[in-house]
Amino acid sequence: MTQNDNRAVLLLSGGMDSTTLLWWMQTQGIDEIHTIAIDYGQRHRVELEFSEKLSQMANARSHRILKLDLTQIGGSPLTDGTKTVPSAHDKQQINTVVPYRNMLFVTLASAWAETQNISHIYLSPVKDDFEAYRDCRRDFYNALENALSLGATQDTSINIHTPFVDKWKTEVVQIGLKLNVPYAYTHTCYEGLRPACGHCDACAERIHAFKTNQTTDPLAYQ
Amino acid sequence: MTQNDNRAVLLLSGGMDSTTLLWWMQTQGIDEIHTIAIDYGQRHRVELEFSEKLSQMANARSHRILKLDLTQIGGSPLTDGTKTVPSAHDKQQINTVVPYRNMLFVTLASAWAETQNISHIYLSPVKDDFEAYRDCRRDFYNALENALSLGATQDTSINIHTPFVDKWKTEVVQIGLKLNVPYAYTHTCYEGLRPACGHCDACAERIHAFKTNQTTDPLAYQ
Repeated sequence: MTQNDNRAVLLLSGGMDSTTLLWWMQTQGIDEIHTIAIDYGQRHRVELEFSEKLSQMANARSHRILKLDLTQIGGSPLTDGTKTVPSAHDKQQINTVVPYRNMLFVTLASAWAETQNISHIYLSPVKDDFEAYRDCRRDFYNALENALSLGATQDTSINIHTPFVDKWKTEVVQIGLKLNVPYAYTHTCYEGLRPACGHCDACAERIHAFKTNQTTDPLAYQ
Repeated sequence: MTQNDNRAVLLLSGGMDSTTLLWWMQTQGIDEIHTIAIDYGQRHRVELEFSEKLSQMANARSHRILKLDLTQIGGSPLTDGTKTVPSAHDKQQINTVVPYRNMLFVTLASAWAETQNISHIYLSPVKDDFEAYRDCRRDFYNALENALSLGATQDTSINIHTPFVDKWKTEVVQIGLKLNVPYAYTHTCYEGLRPACGHCDACAERIHAFKTNQTTDPLAYQ
């Protein structure tokens, strides 16, 4: 980034990946980091509280919660309380997809960023997401950057940064452990439980990531 | 469109352009037309009532109102009651831009369409919008189509149809007059007034379009 646009917006869900990204961004000499969490009607909306807390802990310049009701779209147990969240051994991760969730989040964040004259958006897809979630792949973000640049109010270049897109969650946690990310304050469980359920797909991935790093997850499980 | 995907979603604001598009689509042999209006906190939200009425008059297969609060983004008098809507002679049309409004609308409509296995989205940018609104240009929609296709849950091709993008509003009204579009039920005024204000940018464009077609707008003005 040049001197003039050394300001960025981060989509901070309050999960492990985006929180690690926030701590990592602080090592990159970015002058202003503005965090945004999206209240989309998620079952695990407890993550919104942790997102705000983590933004404060990192001394981000601002934090806001934007509302975007995806329960009106349906199609996923993450936004539909009547559907069952698949457990890890079901291998049904694709069923948790909320159509265009990341695209809507990035575009909404970009809309706010435009009002602040900010053109750098960060988010944290990781390699583990690649298979089930097509909107976590870099070729998608290249296309989205292009659409956002062409659709901006003024002729400009929008940059979507996904520095962890080629890293496994295990590697992300390795980075975070070195940066002393306060993982006890991150939220992962798709069921929205604290202590965490330990059985859903998200919990299973998290537990695996800590185990591979030969350390203990500071989070409480049921 | 092939036999199998002869179903479409139309973003129907209840304005002249999208209403004409709805009537035009009915001449194109599309089996199912589903209309969507977006409640984005617009000052002229009276258009939502007209959109629903017009969908019914056209016997569309379904109509739904999706909520997407853009007042939380700000930046435009269309979503900020404290800002003044520019009048036509101010030549400040660009100030009415809501950042990424069309991109968010198309993506949200595509999310619902995906749950219905529909891959054709229609909307009605016109040539008059080209100068002030970069998100009304076809090169933007080509980029958006690409992003939507790459970001879809399954490998698929999303088609964004903008049949009026190279037509002036005057030509769109000409088409609509031949198709007996009930223009008395469309809403245009940015101020949200019925009878319409007659002075805002949107009213001025509408009045001009009817005058050029040497006919009288059936709408009441103050």
